[in-house]
Amino acid sequence: MAKKVTAETKSRVPASDSYYSHHSPFGAYSTFTLGRFGKGGGFALESGQVPSQNVFVAYSRPNEPVRALPFYQGSVSGAENFTGQAASTENAFAKAGWVPFKAEEITRSLKWASDTWKAGDLRFTIFTPVQSLADFEYELTDKLKLALCPALIAELEFDNSQSKTPGWAFFGVGNIGKPMRVLGQDASLSLPGLARGNEWGFGYRATSEHIPELENVLSFELPELVRAGRSKVHLLASDGGVLIRAKAGQRVTVTLALGFYRGGIATTGLTTEYYYTRFFDNIEDVLAYALDHHTRYKDDAGVIDRRLERSGLSPTRQWLISQATRSYYGSTQLLRRGGHPLWVVNEGEYCMMNTFDLAVDHLFFELRHHPWTVRNMLDLYVERYSYMDEVMLPKDGGSKREKFLGGISFTHDMGTHNQFTRKGCSSYELTNLDGCFSHMTHEQLVNWVCCGALYGLRRPVERDTAPAGRDAGATYAGDKRWIREREPIFLACLESLIRRDSPPGAKRDGVMSLDSSRCGTGQEITTYDSLDVSLGQARSNLYLAVKTWAAYVLLGHVFRQLGRGHLEKDALIQASICAKTITSKYDRKLGFIPAVFEEGNHSAIIPAIEGLVFPYTIGDDEAVSENGPYGKMIHALKTHLKNVLKPGVCLDSASGGWKLSSTNNNTWASKIQLCQFVAETVLGFNFGPSIPKWDAIHAAWQCNEFADFAMSDQLDSTNGKPIGSRYYPRGVTNILWMNDF
Amino acid sequence: MAKKVTAETKSRVPASDSYYSHHSPFGAYSTFTLGRFGKGGGFALESGQVPSQNVFVAYSRPNEPVRALPFYQGSVSGAENFTGQAASTENAFAKAGWVPFKAEEITRSLKWASDTWKAGDLRFTIFTPVQSLADFEYELTDKLKLALCPALIAELEFDNSQSKTPGWAFFGVGNIGKPMRVLGQDASLSLPGLARGNEWGFGYRATSEHIPELENVLSFELPELVRAGRSKVHLLASDGGVLIRAKAGQRVTVTLALGFYRGGIATTGLTTEYYYTRFFDNIEDVLAYALDHHTRYKDDAGVIDRRLERSGLSPTRQWLISQATRSYYGSTQLLRRGGHPLWVVNEGEYCMMNTFDLAVDHLFFELRHHPWTVRNMLDLYVERYSYMDEVMLPKDGGSKREKFLGGISFTHDMGTHNQFTRKGCSSYELTNLDGCFSHMTHEQLVNWVCCGALYGLRRPVERDTAPAGRDAGATYAGDKRWIREREPIFLACLESLIRRDSPPGAKRDGVMSLDSSRCGTGQEITTYDSLDVSLGQARSNLYLAVKTWAAYVLLGHVFRQLGRGHLEKDALIQASICAKTITSKYDRKLGFIPAVFEEGNHSAIIPAIEGLVFPYTIGDDEAVSENGPYGKMIHALKTHLKNVLKPGVCLDSASGGWKLSSTNNNTWASKIQLCQFVAETVLGFNFGPSIPKWDAIHAAWQCNEFADFAMSDQLDSTNGKPIGSRYYPRGVTNILWMNDF
Repeated sequence: MAKKVTAETKSRVPASDSYYSHHSPFGAYSTFTLGRFGKGGGFALESGQVPSQNVFVAYSRPNEPVRALPFYQGSVSGAENFTGQAASTENAFAKAGWVPFKAEEITRSLKWASDTWKAGDLRFTIFTPVQSLADFEYELTDKLKLALCPALIAELEFDNSQSKTPGWAFFGVGNIGKPMRVLGQDASLSLPGLARGNEWGFGYRATSEHIPELENVLSFELPELVRAGRSKVHLLASDGGVLIRAKAGQRVTVTLALGFYRGGIATTGLTTEYYYTRFFDNIEDVLAYALDHHTRYKDDAGVIDRRLERSGLSPTRQWLISQATRSYYGSTQLLRRGGHPLWVVNEGEYCMMNTFDLAVDHLFFELRHHPWTVRNMLDLYVERYSYMDEVMLPKDGGSKREKFLGGISFTHDMGTHNQFTRKGCSSYELTNLDGCFSHMTHEQLVNWVCCGALYGLRRPVERDTAPAGRDAGATYAGDKRWIREREPIFLACLESLIRRDSPPGAKRDGVMSLDSSRCGTGQEITTYDSLDVSLGQARSNLYLAVKTWAAYVLLGHVFRQLGRGHLEKDALIQASICAKTITSKYDRKLGFIPAVFEEGNHSAIIPAIEGLVFPYTIGDDEAVSENGPYGKMIHALKTHLKNVLKPGVCLDSASGGWKLSSTNNNTWASKIQLCQFVAETVLGFNFGPSIPKWDAIHAAWQCNEFADFAMSDQLDSTNGKPIGSRYYPRGVTNILWMNDF
Repeated sequence: MAKKVTAETKSRVPASDSYYSHHSPFGAYSTFTLGRFGKGGGFALESGQVPSQNVFVAYSRPNEPVRALPFYQGSVSGAENFTGQAASTENAFAKAGWVPFKAEEITRSLKWASDTWKAGDLRFTIFTPVQSLADFEYELTDKLKLALCPALIAELEFDNSQSKTPGWAFFGVGNIGKPMRVLGQDASLSLPGLARGNEWGFGYRATSEHIPELENVLSFELPELVRAGRSKVHLLASDGGVLIRAKAGQRVTVTLALGFYRGGIATTGLTTEYYYTRFFDNIEDVLAYALDHHTRYKDDAGVIDRRLERSGLSPTRQWLISQATRSYYGSTQLLRRGGHPLWVVNEGEYCMMNTFDLAVDHLFFELRHHPWTVRNMLDLYVERYSYMDEVMLPKDGGSKREKFLGGISFTHDMGTHNQFTRKGCSSYELTNLDGCFSHMTHEQLVNWVCCGALYGLRRPVERDTAPAGRDAGATYAGDKRWIREREPIFLACLESLIRRDSPPGAKRDGVMSLDSSRCGTGQEITTYDSLDVSLGQARSNLYLAVKTWAAYVLLGHVFRQLGRGHLEKDALIQASICAKTITSKYDRKLGFIPAVFEEGNHSAIIPAIEGLVFPYTIGDDEAVSENGPYGKMIHALKTHLKNVLKPGVCLDSASGGWKLSSTNNNTWASKIQLCQFVAETVLGFNFGPSIPKWDAIHAAWQCNEFADFAMSDQLDSTNGKPIGSRYYPRGVTNILWMNDF
């Protein structure tokens, strides 16, 4: 009965439907990850890795095989552990008559807030409505509860309407290592469903006109039971789900709530709990609430889906945004500290907390949907993760390095794996290093300025969950109170930037020349820590120079807003000399600006243009215009980009994709997409048919034969193979494509 | 400098020093497992499996290799995940110059409350004082806090006294999957140490005359750093520990606290938290308290060690008790429910909670050390895990089975993996089965009677932690208040036992003849669920018949105590006819009583004598005497045992070890040792030199080439290979050997 769709007839955006996606509630640091064919996924809390549960979405009828989405691995029964007999390694599913759908039988449709698989007579959808919360402190409790409920709504539709016999569908998980329990037996709520302890679980409810019979299955013999359409509960088993019986001629739908819960103290260093524990006491609470509000979640998801569909973006870009948003959501964590919210974005597979050089990339998404999280993070950086340093000239062959007064900066992160570090220290940074794990003092200083200025000066208000008629594009509110409150910090940042420009008394060129004393015998690095010196070294670095220029421009706006004319002037003078320096580094022979203004460096880098995003998104079109005050630099950067976007330079010869540095095959998806936005929208490049071509390449990298990690950032530019920063939140830079700031 | 001890010169009790032991605090369901050569171990909470951390106990000096106890696996650095470079599979330790001690260089001494390794110039001891708490509700808070603190004290001594150079020792763990954190930075207590989140950690303190310098190491490069004697802290790393610097000519000692913590709600079904959370807020609290009281813990351990050493038991039996006690401790869990204690013993690798047919084996240990835990468990069985059933005659070929009034019984367990099941249901039992996972109705009924009678009628008070002079052997207090309170239950149990004997109106023979209606089309089984029918089937089963007889004898005592003469008489009549039936089943041709009184069963089983332990331990020497009221049965059982303890029958032909059933190679260590006690002490067998021979075989089974699981219960009798019930608490039946009840 399965509608056959061949690979040829199907228009593939993206190239393959076999890829993992996070499916995550807002701020719960949890996920129901699913989507890679032949592999599991399932529930996970606070993890940087794809879970390895089996996920069962299947149906059968008398004398038919079980047809299932291919989201389970060969799994053996657990009963032999009790009976003292040897384990079988044969695939219990194949043996029991399970026939997974083949790729060509499946159509998957990933939208911004829904992920739908159709195969044969079933449809399975997971809804992940993007939450917009304009300002946490002013939201109504009901809205907060709806947004923070740590659960997802999913829907399984089984179409038995063309069948002359009864049939049954099944949703469940397995291979979870511990027994599940049956809900509704001991809790105050009589909720049908299964759970693992209090950590995660799923509840269900029939929501179609025809009401199917629903029965729990929890058994060592799940494959055989689903095959036979028989229910059974054995509380020692870890394979379980719900059997959905449809009569002949009926189409039935079951709505599922997939929930997560972690109570008690969530973090060390700072004692916090999950914010949602204010509203929910346990997993039963969570699931019951989500099911009670399932139509609201589905409706919201529909609104969000349509918003992206009507954006005018290509299907490929819509897909890239949808996929990236999910991995961002899977990393978000809203905690509660002394009654107040504390926002953390965890760093994908690394699980570092609020990594600042990622936060500046999440900025655009957060400003669009929940700008208060930016403020929340910036305030905690000031309170606890700022420091004052001294600065030093580069090493000159072993002699003691002279130190000068430095200034304020911020740590790389706030901790790792739910462990907040002590005041003034990150988990990442070490002293006496030249490369990876060294300090990012200048980079994070610039990042605080960029985030603070964008948050304070422009703040779009709630849109995506608003009634359709109310959506009126971007609204820039800003937060003037906060800008004023943080004036001392902005002042300290300007001072600190200037002190890193050149030693006291020496001529300034607007570009970082001194390393933080925290580096010891080493030197500062940038966020591009794993690339070669072209992007790795902070001092005299083109990428960081342009971003520093942007910070000066933004500081000009901040001080104007504050009515501090002399400080505005100081900032803009620095912006001018910085732009002048950058312009002067243009090498006519090379046809581009070398990546590092030192020692005959000849690397060509795309992120030269990255920093332009900040003046543009604050609305300063002049600053990024060839006819504006920094016109020469803009012109030089345009020429630079035009000349480096060539095969063998910053277009990979093998794949054709963008390559951030000409001298390294490690390229980063998030930054490519950010730079695409700058090139196309800020600098006005018209790449014509290259755009869909490049997008297709970059999208393919997220779902090719190596793509085992949902959104992956660090990729081998020759083939798209993830080589780091997997399962990663940073891809949401591509929200910029919406261009509605 | 290592003192060479060759395998030949070393007297081996047990046969090998390479075996895992649990090292666990009381009631914390947590362990620091260690001891198998070439394998890891380390910290684990709420787990039925040996943890796989690396454990580092090592020392080095300039230009010397690192000599380490062999408790780590080949491990690769984690840094490459950040740098995008491929992982090396080479053993980072060997590469860095680590040379693990060989078996012949190590002496290990496992005592009742201390486990000590000596190799080269180091000594490492973990202390696990056995806690005796006479009655929880009357204990002083200070004593409770000391007993319940979820931490262990350990001691690392590094003897650099013969060295002309400084040296350094190291204690740490690695391969834990997530970064550790450095203690004392953000908590209120400035405690030196390392921890993983709030879950576990270790603090340390120098406690020798010469005070070593102590420095944290936490790094991806731990092997090289320990080799070089250099400290470093990288908060992204998960390999860490403490570097202990000793000057030339100094012997230094560091005391460690190894702690565990789980806050918040611990269980579902019944909402509980760990009892220790009443005293400790987090892991820092735990470690600081343990270190502050380290001398007390060490002193207590010394008292316990000496108690066993002076017991008169052979070194092999002392070792078996020491090893079994640890695995029992690792399974214990003291929870708090509505302010009151709730005691759980988790079932080893299966993690079922308070499995009743294990509880009856833990009984002797618990009565000796903390009898209130028996009462606590029995009361919860009455409140929540008892049920009333009907009973049925055996299946007679498919016709509907007639049902009769049954009576009270108890479930097999209370749940699994911290999930309490609903009222009246276990996690294990299913309907319609003939073997494993069927109901154990009769068995658990007998178990409640045996546990309740022993608890209520005799209760030894606190001994092992008492000042040495106070120890006056066993003191039998009993709990008459409780016996009176539970009179209705004892009455219901007697009624229920009788109703299972024969259908209404039929002649009784004292032996179970009817299965519980809960079995559906199946039949009841016994605790020997994984053995063949010889021990597996409950009905007409010799093992269960003798245990049923014991229950009647105990009920006689209970009702006498209560002044209920007619009930005492009813019980003793049943005991008499039961004994008579058993005696009548003696088969002269076979020379023993067949295991099942049905269908020409010819299996010979050792646990025929198991039930005799109960009248004996309650002090009823008459009941188990050949000259007493049941003398003929006792005589038959003695003859039975004498005749079955023969090679090829119940002595394994290959190994020479005890084999519970002549028709199955699955033999259980805990039950062997219980039956050894009954044979030697209750029945007075003088096995002479066979005793040490058998003990050596049984001890070897716990530390041979297959022994990867600390105490293992289900073993292959031909070679001692564990085939189930691994990492198991049940071995504490061997406390009976102390024979001081």
